[in-house]
Amino acid sequence: MKDKVLISEVGPRDGLQNCAGVMPTDLKKRWIKSLYEAGVREIEVGSFVPPKLFPQLADTAEIVAFAKTLPDLTVLALIPNLRGAQAALDAGVDAVTLPLSASETHSLKNMRQSHDQVIKNVVAIRSLFNEAPEEKRPRFEAGVSTAFGCSIEGHVPEAKVLELSDRLVEAGVDELGLSDTVGYAQPLQIKRLIKKVREVVGADRVKSVHLHNTYGLGIANAFAAYEEGIEVFDSSQGGLGGCPASPGASGNIVTEDLVYMFEAMGVDTGIDLDALIACRHFLSEGLPGEPIYGMTPNAGLPKGFRS
Amino acid sequence: MKDKVLISEVGPRDGLQNCAGVMPTDLKKRWIKSLYEAGVREIEVGSFVPPKLFPQLADTAEIVAFAKTLPDLTVLALIPNLRGAQAALDAGVDAVTLPLSASETHSLKNMRQSHDQVIKNVVAIRSLFNEAPEEKRPRFEAGVSTAFGCSIEGHVPEAKVLELSDRLVEAGVDELGLSDTVGYAQPLQIKRLIKKVREVVGADRVKSVHLHNTYGLGIANAFAAYEEGIEVFDSSQGGLGGCPASPGASGNIVTEDLVYMFEAMGVDTGIDLDALIACRHFLSEGLPGEPIYGMTPNAGLPKGFRS
Repeated sequence: MKDKVLISEVGPRDGLQNCAGVMPTDLKKRWIKSLYEAGVREIEVGSFVPPKLFPQLADTAEIVAFAKTLPDLTVLALIPNLRGAQAALDAGVDAVTLPLSASETHSLKNMRQSHDQVIKNVVAIRSLFNEAPEEKRPRFEAGVSTAFGCSIEGHVPEAKVLELSDRLVEAGVDELGLSDTVGYAQPLQIKRLIKKVREVVGADRVKSVHLHNTYGLGIANAFAAYEEGIEVFDSSQGGLGGCPASPGASGNIVTEDLVYMFEAMGVDTGIDLDALIACRHFLSEGLPGEPIYGMTPNAGLPKGFRS
Repeated sequence: MKDKVLISEVGPRDGLQNCAGVMPTDLKKRWIKSLYEAGVREIEVGSFVPPKLFPQLADTAEIVAFAKTLPDLTVLALIPNLRGAQAALDAGVDAVTLPLSASETHSLKNMRQSHDQVIKNVVAIRSLFNEAPEEKRPRFEAGVSTAFGCSIEGHVPEAKVLELSDRLVEAGVDELGLSDTVGYAQPLQIKRLIKKVREVVGADRVKSVHLHNTYGLGIANAFAAYEEGIEVFDSSQGGLGGCPASPGASGNIVTEDLVYMFEAMGVDTGIDLDALIACRHFLSEGLPGEPIYGMTPNAGLPKGFRS
């Protein structure tokens, strides 16, 4: 199994998007800088979505510009469509992620797009990126959301996830991530679906998972994904997050506990846990009243613990 | 992998022992009866320890007598020594569990006994039980506590756990459980140690694990143990528990989330999740102000979920 994994911090996007309050831009920059200094090397810093719908992320272009000053940081942004892709390209992101919800009901509610429309967007975005000079071309990821179940449709057939994964790769994405948007996944399902999707699109196309902790299984699901060979794990400081279009979805898996698990297992994350935990004060400062999760920060590191 | 597991509810012992308040005996009986009606078939109902030290468990004999009226329920009690074993035998328990801490510092602090003293106790208890008529003879388990680390000693050598496991079986226990008393375990370690202990004492002697959620890895550790063939899982409603002699240890893994994981994976626990969740009110009623954990109860069961 891998002796190194990449933690992709999604708090500044997935976390903030789902909080009632708006974190001030300056505080957001200081939070991102501190995460970087703690050793985080991939951050989803924002989303190119209409500022009217998501005022929390209205400063994404400015945040991208700031994050790009941090050496060796992969600066990732979410894009919902071609317009977002153009904005991301203009802003100079290293990578974009476009969600496609395996539950079409959720896709229509969350993105107002059918599956066919999303696939058309992917084709158009691929063309746009191909026209850009190679050094400016972002890595193009798609996140297959509600891949493990949907709080509107309930069960999501695996055949649907496989079909969409295939279509996304055909349409031109570089990589796929599997997202448990509402936290319905269980560890055996995680292993089974990763294996099946990899059989369809190739193992090197499926590097990441995005997990939520709605039922307390998030870290168990991360372990299962790790056992299955996944090497990139989305998570959110303090477990911020959820989904505006998914009733009942609670936060992302907690970065602090996830990093603790890997470091305790001897798997290198490159992250200094004490420094990471120290970054939590940005949340209590910038988002007063927001629930902040995580067991490791309260427990203190084990006696004799070394990363 | 097993299509059926046994959830051994330890809340009435491990949970209550570590709470400041004392749950009234009548409420405790109603809680145990409701857990039983929800499908729980093994409960650690108390501990035969000095009532002066643990007033929360002073009614253990009465609780055992009550629990024995519930058909097919395995009534388990903790015993620290020969005197406790006699009391457990007199009370008519189905099974006893005796803790032996792999960290001798913890053993001395928690039980005021060295390893040698505990092993001597085991020999004496085995004789006592052998003198009892067979139909009254309790199953004799030992829990190897701090098997994955100790908040006083820090690292606990695996060789020590293997040596003590061997000595416990030689001295006459029927079964061994591995206890992560302070929540230091990580999933790869869980798998490795279960495998090693089974190699020493035989797979059929190691059926259970006792896990805590101090660092948020408890459910991941349970999944790892399940993958390794473990079929009995201690857990505590609402994640009550800790350890009076272990600074920093937080609660047991949460029964509600553990049952959710297994039922979601299609592994039968025999427990009705809605009925189990309904039992939480005994905790808020009987232990006002005590923190109660668990994600599943707040999330509500997934759309379309069936046990």
